[in-house]
Amino acid sequence: MTARDAWDTDLGRERRPALTAEAVAHLVGGTLRGDGSVTVRAVAPLDRAGEGDLSFLAHARYASLFAQTAAGVVLVAPELAEAPGTPRCRIVVERPHEAMLRVLPALYPPPPRPTGIHPTAMLGRGVSLGRDVSIGAYTVIGEGAGLGDMVTIGSHGSIGPGVRVDAETWLADHVTLYPGAIVGRRVRLHAGVRAGCDGFGYVPDGGAGGEGAPHRKIPHVGRCVIEDDVEIGANSTIDRGSVDDTVIGAGTKIDNLVHVAHNVRIGRACLIMAQVGIAGSVHIGDGCILAGQVGVSGHHTVGAGATLAAQAGVFGDIPAGEVWSGYPARPHKEALRAHAALFKLAGLMRRLERLLERSDA
Amino acid sequence: MTARDAWDTDLGRERRPALTAEAVAHLVGGTLRGDGSVTVRAVAPLDRAGEGDLSFLAHARYASLFAQTAAGVVLVAPELAEAPGTPRCRIVVERPHEAMLRVLPALYPPPPRPTGIHPTAMLGRGVSLGRDVSIGAYTVIGEGAGLGDMVTIGSHGSIGPGVRVDAETWLADHVTLYPGAIVGRRVRLHAGVRAGCDGFGYVPDGGAGGEGAPHRKIPHVGRCVIEDDVEIGANSTIDRGSVDDTVIGAGTKIDNLVHVAHNVRIGRACLIMAQVGIAGSVHIGDGCILAGQVGVSGHHTVGAGATLAAQAGVFGDIPAGEVWSGYPARPHKEALRAHAALFKLAGLMRRLERLLERSDA
Amino acid sequence: MTARDAWDTDLGRERRPALTAEAVAHLVGGTLRGDGSVTVRAVAPLDRAGEGDLSFLAHARYASLFAQTAAGVVLVAPELAEAPGTPRCRIVVERPHEAMLRVLPALYPPPPRPTGIHPTAMLGRGVSLGRDVSIGAYTVIGEGAGLGDMVTIGSHGSIGPGVRVDAETWLADHVTLYPGAIVGRRVRLHAGVRAGCDGFGYVPDGGAGGEGAPHRKIPHVGRCVIEDDVEIGANSTIDRGSVDDTVIGAGTKIDNLVHVAHNVRIGRACLIMAQVGIAGSVHIGDGCILAGQVGVSGHHTVGAGATLAAQAGVFGDIPAGEVWSGYPARPHKEALRAHAALFKLAGLMRRLERLLERSDA
Repeated sequence: MTARDAWDTDLGRERRPALTAEAVAHLVGGTLRGDGSVTVRAVAPLDRAGEGDLSFLAHARYASLFAQTAAGVVLVAPELAEAPGTPRCRIVVERPHEAMLRVLPALYPPPPRPTGIHPTAMLGRGVSLGRDVSIGAYTVIGEGAGLGDMVTIGSHGSIGPGVRVDAETWLADHVTLYPGAIVGRRVRLHAGVRAGCDGFGYVPDGGAGGEGAPHRKIPHVGRCVIEDDVEIGANSTIDRGSVDDTVIGAGTKIDNLVHVAHNVRIGRACLIMAQVGIAGSVHIGDGCILAGQVGVSGHHTVGAGATLAAQAGVFGDIPAGEVWSGYPARPHKEALRAHAALFKLAGLMRRLERLLERSDA
Repeated sequence: MTARDAWDTDLGRERRPALTAEAVAHLVGGTLRGDGSVTVRAVAPLDRAGEGDLSFLAHARYASLFAQTAAGVVLVAPELAEAPGTPRCRIVVERPHEAMLRVLPALYPPPPRPTGIHPTAMLGRGVSLGRDVSIGAYTVIGEGAGLGDMVTIGSHGSIGPGVRVDAETWLADHVTLYPGAIVGRRVRLHAGVRAGCDGFGYVPDGGAGGEGAPHRKIPHVGRCVIEDDVEIGANSTIDRGSVDDTVIGAGTKIDNLVHVAHNVRIGRACLIMAQVGIAGSVHIGDGCILAGQVGVSGHHTVGAGATLAAQAGVFGDIPAGEVWSGYPARPHKEALRAHAALFKLAGLMRRLERLLERSDA
Repeated sequence: MTARDAWDTDLGRERRPALTAEAVAHLVGGTLRGDGSVTVRAVAPLDRAGEGDLSFLAHARYASLFAQTAAGVVLVAPELAEAPGTPRCRIVVERPHEAMLRVLPALYPPPPRPTGIHPTAMLGRGVSLGRDVSIGAYTVIGEGAGLGDMVTIGSHGSIGPGVRVDAETWLADHVTLYPGAIVGRRVRLHAGVRAGCDGFGYVPDGGAGGEGAPHRKIPHVGRCVIEDDVEIGANSTIDRGSVDDTVIGAGTKIDNLVHVAHNVRIGRACLIMAQVGIAGSVHIGDGCILAGQVGVSGHHTVGAGATLAAQAGVFGDIPAGEVWSGYPARPHKEALRAHAALFKLAGLMRRLERLLERSDA
């Protein structure tokens, strides 16, 4: 099977709401051209859209796809309003891609929450459940855990003893919450998230030290607190604190495969992209952006509103509001200038060496 | 227990086929020296091989292990044919390590497929099953999913509603396929793979912006398509598209802990090594190689046949067929030259500064 | 819910041992000031400690928290012994944070091991169990596996056929051990660990090669051996060997999201931090430290006692006992000097170019 053979797997399509082109034009504040009664039930890119689909044309380079698209309705940028094309209806609107995002909630209402506790779910002693909690097949809830109203937990979950999950939070399948983890309201944890794990902390186990000397584990008794409205991507890991807590601030969004070590505090409304690693006791202010594969070494502070470019390696404190990049990370402009100089240098090196020889002679 | 104590755990050995030294020599096109009737049932490195094992000697530095190996049969490079050693039989052959790989399928035929649907597997309404499907214990298959002929799913799987898995595909234990994911024929997904997850997409939630301003989630309604003959390593994550699709091209192999973001398209027969991160809407051509920990930032194109060296940080388009490396990535030769210049520069810096002072004076 | 609202989730507190301030002072070898009969049952940072908690004050910058802490007992550094503050009892001691770690085992004895085989655990034919083995809900143990005395396996585990797990080892929930994996004594594997997976090995499948040419999988028949006293963090992946073995040496500690490829050998008592990637056939000596996000490319050797700084990219052998950093990795001092020169160069570049022009003229 290839991508192209798979048209017919769009399950649930028939249950979704339909929108007329007219309704779409109204939603996005665009100008209708063509038959306003055409209906759409889904969105799709130009090249695989069918007659019941809404698509968009934002750049001239996709005009050839537009010319032959089977889409019923297409959102078109003003400068492309006259582009030759086949859709039965076009809607002229500024920034068609953003306009499309405004249509999505109407076409794709969130699926109905699953309901009830699956008979194979296991609840330990003293578990407290709010109203309308949903728990999937083969999920295990430990002793004394508490789940708030409308909490949804997928299949194969492992919710440790004493964990608290607050109202309206959604856990995908295969999530592990270690004992005592604390999760706020409207949080979303994706498949394979592990939260509240022991941090990576050892001390030399007496004796001489040196190669091969044993490491003794430090008990981890701090908490792992995930505040309201946080989302955490698949297979990310959030350690508990050692004595202090690990805290993910309200509204912060974390991508896949991110590592957050013990005692880290992340502020509110940060964006932490895939494969970022944050070492122990780092403090990150509100509204920071850490791009993919950034690493922050232990005990440093990232000031509020700072941005770290992809793959940056941070070995010191980052001032609030600044953009840093590179390895070791420096203010972004400085890093750019240094890299430009480096690549220029390579071309000048031979002349430079000759000059130094002459001048020394 | 250490590695050395664990000899006796080679379960299944007695059920494996035996090969005589003569048969091995025939298989690899080598020259037999010694008793051709010696039989082997397994392969092992020289230092832990026993009399029923086949081993190999490719480099002189392992000659001391060869001198005392207990292996019954050893593949030996021509230049080492006379090396003193204890095996009852040696087979002289070019490139003994590659020759060994040719013997493996004969000694280790794939284990018999498990058969049947485990009684604890749960199938939702309207699930369609091909011929000879195997489903492991505690696996949950969502409503309307379809599994092709000879599909094998391990234990603890979570296969969402509407997922399609085509014939002869193998899923290890603990795999999560989000709703609607599409998986081709003869695909192999290892333990902990998460495919079809929501991408990392948010827009500012109105208001002033600035630090701590809330992020609103963009619904993800595109597809996640994994084409035929793909293999994906343990704990890797593949997001679904936002409006467009995420597509892993036929025959592409992906290692462990790799992140593929929304709307990424990877061509055919690529090799994507461990911990690579590919940001949103990146397009990668056929036959590319991305070495370990490479990061590609969003919306860029990697041309067909390009190679990216380990840890490269890609912030632009990569031309087809070229080798790039470094941070920010540059053509590999240029990057090497720049690094050489940099380390030379460090030694020249003081002289250079003195020269500039004199010349300015 | 925010971190601050969550005081009351400290489950199990009432079952923990209490210590008097006098007993704490004795344990840490400190000097008691105040009421020695005050009891504590938990540790907490100054700002969220209550009257039954032990806290510590190690730096003057936390003196304002100390001034108003509700902690019953606080360990205080000698130079802060007179700091104004509210605790009923203070204990003056050198390095209060380390002293705190010595108190933890007394306040937080390891929770009692769960006991028994959960009725939903599934044991294959010929599984052998030592004394007092504990197996969690929905765990599946494959045919012929062997678990030693006092082994603890969490919920949702998947222990493949022929796996051996030695005495007193603890597996968290959601662990996957592929067939034949060998795990020593007192090992700790965290949630989502995958050990014994196939390595990433392919050969060109005949024909012309070039873009899009198919890759043929190399069977992996080597072992995955995890020696005694190893700990491996959440969602880390350890591949089996191809012909040779993958070995994690005794006492080595591995953090979250680490990748260890086929045929890697890691020595004893190493510390491998989060998101490190170790490519195929790398050998690492005893007592090495690899900081976060380090990558080591294939077939290289890291000598005993070497340290690699965070994000280092290793493309060659590392001598024993040395500290290397950077990309490509160089001896740390050399790398620091090179980076300093680079950032200086950026400021000198224009003058340097002018000088070269003049000198060429």
